Amino acid sequence: MKIPPVKGTRDFYPPDMAVRNWIIDGWKKVSVRNGFVEYDGPIFEYLKMFQIKSGDEIAEQLFSLKDRGGRELALRPEITPTLARMVNQQINSLPRPIKWFSVPRLCRAERPQKGRLREFFQWNIDIIGVDDVLADAEVIFTTVDYLREVGLKPRDVQVKISSRKLLASSLRNIGIPENQLDSLYALLDKYSKMPRDGFEKILSEQVPDSRMAKKIMDLMNAALSEVAEIVGANAGVEDAIQELARLQELLTQMGVWQYCGFYPSIVRGLAYYTGVVFEVHEVAGELRAIGGGGRFDNLLHDFGGPQIPATGMGMGDCVLEILLREKGLLDNQVPQQKLDYFVACVDAKFFPHVLEITAAIRRKKASANFSYKTGGLSRQLKEASAQDAEKCIIIGEEFKNGQLVVKDMATGQQELVNFDEFLSQLKC
Amino acid sequence: MKIPPVKGTRDFYPPDMAVRNWIIDGWKKVSVRNGFVEYDGPIFEYLKMFQIKSGDEIAEQLFSLKDRGGRELALRPEITPTLARMVNQQINSLPRPIKWFSVPRLCRAERPQKGRLREFFQWNIDIIGVDDVLADAEVIFTTVDYLREVGLKPRDVQVKISSRKLLASSLRNIGIPENQLDSLYALLDKYSKMPRDGFEKILSEQVPDSRMAKKIMDLMNAALSEVAEIVGANAGVEDAIQELARLQELLTQMGVWQYCGFYPSIVRGLAYYTGVVFEVHEVAGELRAIGGGGRFDNLLHDFGGPQIPATGMGMGDCVLEILLREKGLLDNQVPQQKLDYFVACVDAKFFPHVLEITAAIRRKKASANFSYKTGGLSRQLKEASAQDAEKCIIIGEEFKNGQLVVKDMATGQQELVNFDEFLSQLKC
Repeated sequence: MKIPPVKGTRDFYPPDMAVRNWIIDGWKKVSVRNGFVEYDGPIFEYLKMFQIKSGDEIAEQLFSLKDRGGRELALRPEITPTLARMVNQQINSLPRPIKWFSVPRLCRAERPQKGRLREFFQWNIDIIGVDDVLADAEVIFTTVDYLREVGLKPRDVQVKISSRKLLASSLRNIGIPENQLDSLYALLDKYSKMPRDGFEKILSEQVPDSRMAKKIMDLMNAALSEVAEIVGANAGVEDAIQELARLQELLTQMGVWQYCGFYPSIVRGLAYYTGVVFEVHEVAGELRAIGGGGRFDNLLHDFGGPQIPATGMGMGDCVLEILLREKGLLDNQVPQQKLDYFVACVDAKFFPHVLEITAAIRRKKASANFSYKTGGLSRQLKEASAQDAEKCIIIGEEFKNGQLVVKDMATGQQELVNFDEFLSQLKC
Repeated sequence: MKIPPVKGTRDFYPPDMAVRNWIIDGWKKVSVRNGFVEYDGPIFEYLKMFQIKSGDEIAEQLFSLKDRGGRELALRPEITPTLARMVNQQINSLPRPIKWFSVPRLCRAERPQKGRLREFFQWNIDIIGVDDVLADAEVIFTTVDYLREVGLKPRDVQVKISSRKLLASSLRNIGIPENQLDSLYALLDKYSKMPRDGFEKILSEQVPDSRMAKKIMDLMNAALSEVAEIVGANAGVEDAIQELARLQELLTQMGVWQYCGFYPSIVRGLAYYTGVVFEVHEVAGELRAIGGGGRFDNLLHDFGGPQIPATGMGMGDCVLEILLREKGLLDNQVPQQKLDYFVACVDAKFFPHVLEITAAIRRKKASANFSYKTGGLSRQLKEASAQDAEKCIIIGEEFKNGQLVVKDMATGQQELVNFDEFLSQLKC
C-alpha cells in the first residue's frame, strides 16, 4: 500500500535536513548573541486562542482538531498567542526585560504555492516590557544581524519600516472615519503587491473623495520628512514621525541603517500591531516578505494579562531558503556531514577488533563507521570513500603489537600508529 | 480573556527549554558519531498511514484532522511509517546502508500521566538494508552510547532484549495455535507490568492447558540457555537462540553487554516487529520503558516498497527526563545560558557608543546586552549581574582615547583596554 505525503508538506531527506539545520542553527546563534533566551510552547492549543487577535487570514487557515473529550484544538499557525499566554502565566516571576526567541514548527491550512507551505519553521524574537522604540531597534538589529551573518547584503534585502501609529494618525488627519481604518489597512497592505492602477481603482471605491484618495497615494510614496506636509501636522502625526526618526538614529548608531528604509505602505496583516511595523523584503521584489514584525502593546492584556508593551519579529524558513538558494548562499555555507573514521580489517578474524575500535573512537566523540558486509579490504575502502570518511583505520597483523594503519582518504597516505596513542590524541 | 494550555502539553520556559535542548543535542551528537544522518518528515500525514501497521494502541491515540479539501489527516504518533514512506520513495537513489536518525515531535491523544504526555519528542535511529543481527547490535550500541554519555550506569538502566522469532517459535512449539499468537503477545507484553498472580490468572484464561501455561511462565523467566529445554528444540527455536547468542557476542565486543540482558517477556506493543526486540528500562523498575525497538523486516514492503530488512530504536524525552532528574544528572550537566558581555556607560551621552560596541561584539559572535533603561552605572551593573554577564564593558571619558573598562563580574577586577585590541581578540 503506497501512501503519498500531504501536499504542502516537506520531506527532509538528509541533504534537505542539513539546510534546515543550518538555517535554524543560524537563527539560534544570532538570537543568543543578541541576548535572547529560547522558549517553546505546544504545537496545539485551544482553537479559540488563535481566533481572538490573529486577524482573519490566519483564523481562516487554522488546522483544527478535537481531543478525545471533544474539546476544540488547533495546530498553531503562529507562536505569538502562546508567547502571550506563557508570559501572562508567569508575569510576576519572569526576570525582566523578557527577551525570548523561539523556532516553532507552524501549520497553516493554506493553498500551497511558492514560498508558502502548510508546515514551516519560523524564527521568532520578542522583547516584552519595554515601551521605548529602542526595543524595536533591537529587534530590527537582531533581524539584520542574521541577514548579514548568512551573507545577504543591503543590495539583496531591505527592512521596510513604517508605523501603525503614523498610519492611523495620518489617515485620521486626511479625514478617514475611525470605523474604516481596519478595512483600509487591509487594502494598503496590498499596495506593493498589486499593479498601481488596480490599487487606485479599489482605493477610489473605498475612499470616493478624490482629494483624500490622492493624499493616501502620496502618503504611500512619501519620505518620512514629507509625511506631515501631505497629511497635515498634529500631535499624533508628529509623535509618530519623531519615533520613526529616533528609530532611524538608533539603527544608524547600531550600524544597520543601510539595510533599512521608511515605507509608509507597510501595514502587516496581523490584527494586533500597535506601533512600529516592518517587513523584510528582497530588493528584487519578486518573493513574498521574508519576515516581519512590529509592536503589539495590547496583546498580553487581550490575553487576560496586564497592559505590558511588547515588540517582535517572525521570519519563516520557506521564502528565506528560496532567496538564499537564488543568491548562491546555501551550497558554500551548509556543512556536509563528514565521517571522521571508517574502521576496516584485512581479514574477518580481526572483525571483533573493528567493533572494539569503532566503539572506542565513538566514545571519544569522533564519528566512526564500519562495514556491515564481509568483504575484502578494497571493498571496505570503497565503502569508506562512499561515506566521505576522512580517515580509514585498517586493522591487520600489526594489531597484535598494538598498532594499526591510519589512511588519509584525501591524500592516500598511510601511517602505522600505536592504538593507545591514537586513542589518547582523539578529540574528546 | 485567559486561555489555559491544553492538558498533557508542555510549556517550555527558558529553563525547561535548556533541558530539552540538552537532551536533544545529546541524541544528535551520539547519532552523528555513530554514523547516522538526520532526516525528518511532516508532522501530519494521511490518517490511514498510521492505521496500517502501528498496532491498536497507537491507532486509538491518533489526533485526526481534516484539510480544507476534507481529506483525513493525522498528527504523527510515531515517525516509522514516515520513514518507510520516505525510504520507499527514493529507494533506488539512497546511498546504502541507510543509517538515519530523527528527533520528531510526536502527538498522541493519550490520557496524560507520569511520563506520558500528548506531545513529546522521540529520538529515532534506524538502519535499513542490513539483515545481519550486526545492525541490531549497532542500534543497541548507539542507544547505550547515549545512556552512558549522559552518565547512566548499568546499575541504573538495562536494555532488555528478546526476539519475536524466538517467542513465535517457542509458543508454536509449546502448542499455541497460530491465530492466538497476536493476542498472547499482547498479554506477554504486560508480564512485567502486572502482579504475578493477576498475570497467571489471565494467562490461564487464554491458555487453559495448565502444562502449556506453565511452560509459558517458565519461558518468561528463562535464561537464554534454558529456553530450548523449556519449549523444546527445533530449527526455528535454535536459529533464534543462535541469533541472540551472536547479538550478545557482538555487544560484548562493542563493550556494552554490561548494560544488556536477555528477557523473554519483552514483546513490544507495535505490530510490525519481526525479529530482535528490546526495551530500555530503569533497573529500579518504577518508570515506564525509556525506549525500545527492534527489527521490522516487512514494514517497507507493507508500505508499498520492496522487501528490505530494517531495525531501529525510539526513545522519548518524558520518561528519560524524569529518570535523569531522579539520578541528579540534569542540574550539573544542562548548561546555563551565559551572557558574555553587558555594555554599560557612565553617562547617557555615551549611549550611542553602547549601541555601537554592543553591535560590534555581537558581530564577533559573542553575546552582549545593554540596559533599555536610562539609569546610573550602579543600576546598569546590577542588571549585568541579574543577567549573569561574565564581563561588563563600561564606557566613560576614556572612550575619547579609544579605551574602555572591562570588569570581570566574578572577581570584580577592572581593566582598561584599547577598544580595537579588545575587538580583535574576541572569538569569531
